[in-house]
Amino acid sequence: MTTDGSIRVSVLGLGAMGSVLAGALVKAGYATTVWNRSPGRADELVAQGARAAATAGEAVRSGQLVIACLLDHESVREVLDPLSGELAGRTLINLTTTTPAQSRESAAWAARAGVAYLDGGIMAVPEMIGRSGASILYSGSAEVFERYEPLLDLWATSTYFGDDAGLASLYDLALLAGMYVMFAGFMHGAAMVAPAGVTAGEFAAMAAPWLTAMTGGFHGFAAVIDGGDYAAEGQQSLRFSDLGDILAASSEQGIGTEVVAVVQRLIRRQIDAGHGDEGFARIIESIRQPA
Amino acid sequence: MTTDGSIRVSVLGLGAMGSVLAGALVKAGYATTVWNRSPGRADELVAQGARAAATAGEAVRSGQLVIACLLDHESVREVLDPLSGELAGRTLINLTTTTPAQSRESAAWAARAGVAYLDGGIMAVPEMIGRSGASILYSGSAEVFERYEPLLDLWATSTYFGDDAGLASLYDLALLAGMYVMFAGFMHGAAMVAPAGVTAGEFAAMAAPWLTAMTGGFHGFAAVIDGGDYAAEGQQSLRFSDLGDILAASSEQGIGTEVVAVVQRLIRRQIDAGHGDEGFARIIESIRQPA
Repeated sequence: MTTDGSIRVSVLGLGAMGSVLAGALVKAGYATTVWNRSPGRADELVAQGARAAATAGEAVRSGQLVIACLLDHESVREVLDPLSGELAGRTLINLTTTTPAQSRESAAWAARAGVAYLDGGIMAVPEMIGRSGASILYSGSAEVFERYEPLLDLWATSTYFGDDAGLASLYDLALLAGMYVMFAGFMHGAAMVAPAGVTAGEFAAMAAPWLTAMTGGFHGFAAVIDGGDYAAEGQQSLRFSDLGDILAASSEQGIGTEVVAVVQRLIRRQIDAGHGDEGFARIIESIRQPA
Repeated sequence: MTTDGSIRVSVLGLGAMGSVLAGALVKAGYATTVWNRSPGRADELVAQGARAAATAGEAVRSGQLVIACLLDHESVREVLDPLSGELAGRTLINLTTTTPAQSRESAAWAARAGVAYLDGGIMAVPEMIGRSGASILYSGSAEVFERYEPLLDLWATSTYFGDDAGLASLYDLALLAGMYVMFAGFMHGAAMVAPAGVTAGEFAAMAAPWLTAMTGGFHGFAAVIDGGDYAAEGQQSLRFSDLGDILAASSEQGIGTEVVAVVQRLIRRQIDAGHGDEGFARIIESIRQPA
């Protein structure tokens, strides 16, 4: 990567994430202007070489590329709606966490205002930015993605999904859904073994490699789902995947069962609909077509 | 490992799992007798060198070590209760999937009958037996575990948890709970992105490394849980972990929300109880003390 010091970048929003994104740009030599609604957040970045703007409008006018990393979609609209004139002809990369519909709304607004728009979903905590393992998903303008890819790669592995601006957010939220649900499953397991004197740390040492190994099953499920034949050979049947033992053991341990019970309901609905001999992947139909 | 051909082993139950367990023993040179309730399942093993017993009693009398890998706890009791006299003085390793209470019931029964008892929970599908990645958890008689460890290691990585016979089952079910819940989270994510034209295979290619990386968070959660201070520094707060965007995006995609909604409820209950500024690990309290 060659850093082009003549590229003027402005970062709107200096929360934990916005600050590290801006810091990486400053460190790489980009002419970086920063702005935050509440003052005082810019001091450390200014010490590193950034310029602090007094208003969002001043920040936008200072940058050909504007990065928004604000609290939520409402904050984005509140800050940018009055600045459509200033933003016209510039480029906006919106890394604020939003729903796909909100990303599409921002893309439509940008199109009307004559602003080139790229939407991003950050798959990392602030400490991971600039290190291996961090990933940022993009969708919207392919031209913007290609032009600024060296800059984007400073932060994380950059993946572009297509010109539907909502796609990155959708992927982002789908992956976060998987993460939060996995975390709940880990907590359930830790709560199960705790009454037997097993620490959460001991359980984590077993659960992390176990669940890592079990992610290997995703590709098999996906092949069945994409193939469209839930009854394909070589699968463990839904009937065999009854979670009754897990629910009983959870109750025996005196803990709640709701985290596992929701999975049992997904399974049950398919068995009750006559699909008990088909593979486990069929539970996706319980999600696609809720009760 | 040196295989002792003079050790006579009997395997009760030739389902998919029992068959591969027996096959590994035959291959390693153990004098192996096999029995299954419904006939015909032993043919392939007999061709490999096993001896088929006509009755469970005959199988028990042939082996100093008896391995049970039956359908469920009821099957174990049904097959073994009438054979307490024949089993006296022998060793029983029960690999049938049961709840911890059922494992303890079998251990108590074995103690009364003068049978040395080890309970096991298999963390693998049959195809994984004898390969790296397979794991079997044991608890009960330490003496049995130590004496037969070379044999047990033929099947999988063997881990012994203690003399409470229910501990292996408890660990087994807790890890399986984590797995099934993670699978449901994967399915939810795949269902979210599908309406945007993303195949389950494309999503799996993103989700498997993502969730693998996120298992790295377990140790941090565990440190907070074991430390007993959910408000410890350096954590993402529960309030920040609101899943509203994921729920909204799921609804926008026209799919059910129950898999994510259960996690949101765990979070909400802690926030409502005044713990919104504490770390995410606190949701384990929503599981320990259900609503």
